[in-house]
Amino acid sequence: MAERKANEIFKEFKEHSIAEFFKKNKQMLGYAGLVRSLVTVVHEYVTNSLDACEEAGILPDISVSISQSGENRYIVEVGDNGPGIPKKFAGKALATILAGTKFHRYIQQRGQQGIGAAGCTLFSQITTGKPVGMRAFTKDGEAYSCSIAIDTMGNKPVITETKELENPEGITGTIIRAEFAEVKYENSEHGVYEYLKRTALANPHAQIRFRDPEGKEYTFVRSSDAVPELPKQTLPHPLGLSIMDILDFAKKSQESSVASFLMASFSRVSQGKVKELKEIATGVDFSKKPKEMTWNDSEELVKAFKQVKWLAPDASVIRPIGADRVRLAVRSILNPEYMHVIERKPQVFKGGIPFIVEAAISYGGGSGKKVGNEEYTGSILRFANKVPLLFDTGSCAITQAVRDIQWKRYGIDMDNQPVSVLVNISSVYVPYSGVGKEAIAQEDEIIDEIKLALQEAARNIQRYMHGKQQVNVEKNKYKTIMRYVSQLSKDLGSLTGTDKAVIRGKLEELVTEHYPKVKEEEETKDEDESTLEIVESSSEEEKGENE
Amino acid sequence: MAERKANEIFKEFKEHSIAEFFKKNKQMLGYAGLVRSLVTVVHEYVTNSLDACEEAGILPDISVSISQSGENRYIVEVGDNGPGIPKKFAGKALATILAGTKFHRYIQQRGQQGIGAAGCTLFSQITTGKPVGMRAFTKDGEAYSCSIAIDTMGNKPVITETKELENPEGITGTIIRAEFAEVKYENSEHGVYEYLKRTALANPHAQIRFRDPEGKEYTFVRSSDAVPELPKQTLPHPLGLSIMDILDFAKKSQESSVASFLMASFSRVSQGKVKELKEIATGVDFSKKPKEMTWNDSEELVKAFKQVKWLAPDASVIRPIGADRVRLAVRSILNPEYMHVIERKPQVFKGGIPFIVEAAISYGGGSGKKVGNEEYTGSILRFANKVPLLFDTGSCAITQAVRDIQWKRYGIDMDNQPVSVLVNISSVYVPYSGVGKEAIAQEDEIIDEIKLALQEAARNIQRYMHGKQQVNVEKNKYKTIMRYVSQLSKDLGSLTGTDKAVIRGKLEELVTEHYPKVKEEEETKDEDESTLEIVESSSEEEKGENE
Repeated sequence: MAERKANEIFKEFKEHSIAEFFKKNKQMLGYAGLVRSLVTVVHEYVTNSLDACEEAGILPDISVSISQSGENRYIVEVGDNGPGIPKKFAGKALATILAGTKFHRYIQQRGQQGIGAAGCTLFSQITTGKPVGMRAFTKDGEAYSCSIAIDTMGNKPVITETKELENPEGITGTIIRAEFAEVKYENSEHGVYEYLKRTALANPHAQIRFRDPEGKEYTFVRSSDAVPELPKQTLPHPLGLSIMDILDFAKKSQESSVASFLMASFSRVSQGKVKELKEIATGVDFSKKPKEMTWNDSEELVKAFKQVKWLAPDASVIRPIGADRVRLAVRSILNPEYMHVIERKPQVFKGGIPFIVEAAISYGGGSGKKVGNEEYTGSILRFANKVPLLFDTGSCAITQAVRDIQWKRYGIDMDNQPVSVLVNISSVYVPYSGVGKEAIAQEDEIIDEIKLALQEAARNIQRYMHGKQQVNVEKNKYKTIMRYVSQLSKDLGSLTGTDKAVIRGKLEELVTEHYPKVKEEEETKDEDESTLEIVESSSEEEKGENE
Repeated sequence: MAERKANEIFKEFKEHSIAEFFKKNKQMLGYAGLVRSLVTVVHEYVTNSLDACEEAGILPDISVSISQSGENRYIVEVGDNGPGIPKKFAGKALATILAGTKFHRYIQQRGQQGIGAAGCTLFSQITTGKPVGMRAFTKDGEAYSCSIAIDTMGNKPVITETKELENPEGITGTIIRAEFAEVKYENSEHGVYEYLKRTALANPHAQIRFRDPEGKEYTFVRSSDAVPELPKQTLPHPLGLSIMDILDFAKKSQESSVASFLMASFSRVSQGKVKELKEIATGVDFSKKPKEMTWNDSEELVKAFKQVKWLAPDASVIRPIGADRVRLAVRSILNPEYMHVIERKPQVFKGGIPFIVEAAISYGGGSGKKVGNEEYTGSILRFANKVPLLFDTGSCAITQAVRDIQWKRYGIDMDNQPVSVLVNISSVYVPYSGVGKEAIAQEDEIIDEIKLALQEAARNIQRYMHGKQQVNVEKNKYKTIMRYVSQLSKDLGSLTGTDKAVIRGKLEELVTEHYPKVKEEEETKDEDESTLEIVESSSEEEKGENE
């Protein structure tokens, strides 16, 4: 074959938009497989609704409706009572990839990239050729509907059919209605129903209504009426900053000196700390403008940061699910024989990004995964910022942590017992391994922290299992002896003339004293039996309407 | 908490460049973990070099040199004898994400997205603040060096220090030298050495030299001098097209009618086929301009395509590793006791994208993963378009296929035996699950095809294992009987007066005839013992130069 010159080859050189890229690689957004693709759509819309309500201080009422419109073809409608999207931003919000309010902020939210909703529009467009329909009602009095598509070459919105709407009751909210092909509704562990149930469990303040393609309606009832405080936006902690981060912040800073820039831009930097830093980073001119900072300045600062004693990052910015809520979640999903929940203290990864791990291990009931008639293996329920993660299990930090633990040490056989592990990670920045946000990157500090949580829970489970074993041994002995008590009290009764019932009572008391565990067990049954309230109704007459 | 209005929230709405996005989410490009990040860098540069040489019809000579420049800080230099990058394209090639020659073409190449090299520049920049250095020599006489950085806000190159170079010998090629922090060299299964070794094995026509941070030099010697034919660029097969694909092609087409457009743009569409299509897709006007095609036209065509009998996609565009080469690879990496290699016929996924699966199963030797003293579990070696995949094992289609197989049916115990599975997938479009290209999306058709290949290989391994078992039984019997032969021939010799050696010989012959497997085994040892040639040299004097 003849050699080809560089110029011949490079004349085919082209640039592409991010929308073109994801159009070709939609599996990277989570659109791979019929069932998963539908869950991805619901996931993107519902997390956006939850975030929007949270940010506006509104108790979320979310409704999800899915109806079938053809073979592997469905219409999805998701509505919320959030603040609504102003008309000016509608196109960018739904049809520009990498646009949004979340990307540049340091705050705990479910979405963080500005890809999700635009990804749905792209997916609808490439599978059905149709735009996405939107209705929005804002508090400022905007009320309109429109259709939105993406010009993929330019990663720009194409808005059509804009109409003004009446809004006599002054409601607020956003309703999105879109059609998708190459999707499938399935009632499985990886399906939409399970996704919404888990979302409801991790978000007790949200009321979620769901209507499935058969017209069945479910309401996951709100169990907490407190509007959750909006997670506070926080300043980055010095220990979490890279050299580049500092330079990026410096470039945008309006402060007059490096000293004031550090105090204004990062958390825990006080006048006293600046003084300490000055003594260590002697090569840095703290009085010059932040814009004039060089790579070397920043590098010296990063090194100096490591030598100063800092208050830990402000973890009050993080909102975990909460131990009680995790317990409720496990009980509702698995109804186990026994469980133990751990809520760990805030930790940091990469030096200064705070995060909190919550974990639970449950045994028995619906725990584990049934693999045969009476055979089980362990299973994992993963959450990140209260969002259930159903896919890409294998590459997730949570899965890795579970794999790393030597369960046998704790008397737990992950391969052959009905055991479930639940883990939720909350952070202002969850390092997802992929754009589809279904797995957490395997950062050592995160894996280690999950392991500590699970080990703590495992020790408790071990005690339970050990206790259970002992109780079983005692129970057998107790039963055997009790068999004699009846005869013995009769015989002693005739011999002594005492009432045999009295003798029996005393004997039973004596025996029970010797086997305290049998009694204890009866007394320590879980009192709290509350589970997630799911109201189910089948609306036959409405079903027809959908088809 | 007070409710916030939409306008307040949305005033923070911003748009971001793809470079900004990956700057914040570098783990999505494979930059997660010190060891993995260094392999990612080498992987991106080496695959680019291999693709460039292949495209230019040049036998690749690639050299990789890694030297340490600080704690978790290394300088990587990768050079090739490819066509060189013309000065005009240098900036875009190395510092614009989503620019390249590969994205829009339908051809089997290792890279396919235009992200890799620019991702390296970004990673160097955010960890060291330094630009990437490049020297290039093209056949057209360009010879220059320059430094390249990314303006991440604009996803644009910033080129500095451009210098003209002498090139008296008229060589061609590109040499890239860049420094990275937050990386680490490690000699492990997931390290650079192993990555290069596996690359060499899958690319026999490439000569790869490697100098590690200790100054040790290795040459993975080229074992085939045939310049591989450039995989042909092909036209998409009708069965692989979505409605949107057809419209996209139609929009760009200069053809005068839909009929001629179909013949010009897609493979296997002849005049006869167009006639057939016309009879089925009666709603489509085949004489109108392709640009005028509607979604409905395209949808009707996609449906019609499914009713026509097509020749299979042209698989000559696909270049698998080749069965002999796979055998060599397995022998070189694992030196197993036994192996079986399968090269499957071309298949298609998503209707019309051709791909070929090659698979091997090996037993014993270095197969499997040592987990204890004498304990092993199965292991997987994954390749896509001849590129080794070392990370994200859990979420890959190959891993899923291996998990799906009921190995016990084939007498193989994946949990407790020294078994390795190798799979390579070759295609004009490998559906990677992430931007980092370390795992293949779980497309059902791909998983099924891998399973078929592995089941075929497993049956063969089963015969071997069964045979081995039988041979062991026979061997024991044979040995036991042979113990008597010596005494018997002596005794018979004294009784009959015949030479005991003659009697012994005849007896042995008799016994051996009864146990043919013992003899067979000795005769069927693997004759071909060739492995990858690796020349190792430690250049102490050169080592100093690097430090």
